[in-house]
Amino acid sequence: MDRVPVLRLGDVLLVSVQVDLSDQLALALQDDLTNRIVDTGARGVVIDISGLDIVDSFVGRMLSSIAAMSKVLDAETIVVGMRPAVAITLVELGLSLPGVRTALNLEQGLHRLRFSRTLVGPDDGPAGAGDAR
Amino acid sequence: MDRVPVLRLGDVLLVSVQVDLSDQLALALQDDLTNRIVDTGARGVVIDISGLDIVDSFVGRMLSSIAAMSKVLDAETIVVGMRPAVAITLVELGLSLPGVRTALNLEQGLHRLRFSRTLVGPDDGPAGAGDAR
Repeated sequence: MDRVPVLRLGDVLLVSVQVDLSDQLALALQDDLTNRIVDTGARGVVIDISGLDIVDSFVGRMLSSIAAMSKVLDAETIVVGMRPAVAITLVELGLSLPGVRTALNLEQGLHRLRFSRTLVGPDDGPAGAGDAR
Repeated sequence: MDRVPVLRLGDVLLVSVQVDLSDQLALALQDDLTNRIVDTGARGVVIDISGLDIVDSFVGRMLSSIAAMSKVLDAETIVVGMRPAVAITLVELGLSLPGVRTALNLEQGLHRLRFSRTLVGPDDGPAGAGDAR
């Protein structure tokens, strides 16, 4: 495996990290993701880590870096799908993922990014009602 | 890696296959996916294979199996993100992915599943227009 796929979903780019990231793979992901943000004009990035058993300091730093890079490109990053054991380990390691927002799962992450109205459904309150008028 | 994550997105389950699937991993994926369809009442399954360099007969059979299993559970399966080289190899191998629908990418796959109105946005043409009348 040489690349982590970056999927587009409207204004959001979705990355599902499933394998342990080598240096090379992490750099390739940062490169791909920043390029895709610029190419697509994406406003949000969702990184799903539900496939990861372990988030060590390297992955933690990478997540923080991606969040920072996306931010200067005007895209907000949210990390979703963290397993309970990963949360425990992170805190025990003293890692708090500075600058990284989290949500429980993909759907909540998209809601949090406030793309909920266009991405998840019509029943999301006032915005949808406004369109109908 | 012991599992391929299954992400939920409204009525659709999303699977991003990024690593070569062993027998065990493929069986675990079928198991997870069918359970998630039943648990969530999902109506569609999108399998992204943009991370795969090679789709051999084993993976082809697995995709067909998943599509067939989903179908009997009343969920439609669509495979997205196939690389051009993969398409060439598939045809050269005489594999036509029977029973598997495809779309170019995740967005088009979601549109194809006719969840486009609720998932991707309000500007999706006839379906939305019909509702407005």
